[in-house]
Amino acid sequence: MRADARKNRDHLLAVAGAAITEQGVDVSLRDIARRADVGLATLLRHFPTREALLEALLRTSFDELTAKADELDVSTSSPEVALVSWVRDCVAWTTEYRGVTVLMAAAIEDADSALHASCVTLRAAGARLLTRAQVAGMARDDIDGDDLFALIAMLAWLGDQPSLAPRADHLFDVVASAILTSAGNSVTERESSPRAGS
Amino acid sequence: MRADARKNRDHLLAVAGAAITEQGVDVSLRDIARRADVGLATLLRHFPTREALLEALLRTSFDELTAKADELDVSTSSPEVALVSWVRDCVAWTTEYRGVTVLMAAAIEDADSALHASCVTLRAAGARLLTRAQVAGMARDDIDGDDLFALIAMLAWLGDQPSLAPRADHLFDVVASAILTSAGNSVTERESSPRAGS
Repeated sequence: MRADARKNRDHLLAVAGAAITEQGVDVSLRDIARRADVGLATLLRHFPTREALLEALLRTSFDELTAKADELDVSTSSPEVALVSWVRDCVAWTTEYRGVTVLMAAAIEDADSALHASCVTLRAAGARLLTRAQVAGMARDDIDGDDLFALIAMLAWLGDQPSLAPRADHLFDVVASAILTSAGNSVTERESSPRAGS
Repeated sequence: MRADARKNRDHLLAVAGAAITEQGVDVSLRDIARRADVGLATLLRHFPTREALLEALLRTSFDELTAKADELDVSTSSPEVALVSWVRDCVAWTTEYRGVTVLMAAAIEDADSALHASCVTLRAAGARLLTRAQVAGMARDDIDGDDLFALIAMLAWLGDQPSLAPRADHLFDVVASAILTSAGNSVTERESSPRAGS
């Protein structure tokens, strides 16, 4: 890509990022183009779909979350702590982008979506952490990477609803306790910092 | 209400019900009016907001779910079975109306919403079943009616996402197991029909 094309693309991404932070991922593409002072056609030449724009915008985050999973996989002695910690990071990240959960949930089954490959990679990273916890007897063995992806999506959606978000942290713990076995739960409780009961 | 006004209202509700079943609760009010062969102003005179229309449309279901909770409360000997059964009914019901979960999640904290009172009544019905299960030592005691409402909303949202819906039944069981204590889970497993593991 030529230097000026790269510069235009970066400018569009910066404007899109700000617009999405303010209004969520459903923000109008026309508004993004207007704020970037370009025509809609120019925006669409760089990013032909909303998903393509998000994929570019979230590229770094996707890579970081996948790298984090790999890092936790090798560095954390407690597989159940690694799993819960990574799930927490995923949920916290998606709630930064209002509405992204619905798009990711659709993209995971839509090979034509520009977000598909990243979602599949993320799901596989989670599945590896889950399997490690299952092998150690710390996570229930009747769930798989697809279930974990769906549970993360549910928790992210919860954090996205203004009226329900106040319960999100507590319900994260409730759902996490369902993912883990009693052995996994007892380790996680010991390792987590003390919290007041609700 | 005069007989002809009642007839017009019933006609609008029938048309709205069909449109919502096809397209979800975000269906355009203008489309509903067009299908009912009336002007938008006429529709809005009967139902000033989307929530008012839904409240009228779902009135019977709301009443049935609340009555069901009361009935389970007195007729079911196992409070954990009553609780899980009612939660399952709520989730199954909301997934009939695509998108209703988001509106109900907003309405529970919005006293101005036409859906507010029904959502509050529903939450209270669930809270009674939860309390009964907690008193019996069958449900974890660190969740309340607000948490239960949020968990139902999460599960309903899951069933609403085409790509995640195939996991919904299984994840219902996972989340239900988190609501119950180990005593509650063992009773529920004994009473439920045998299921193949996933």
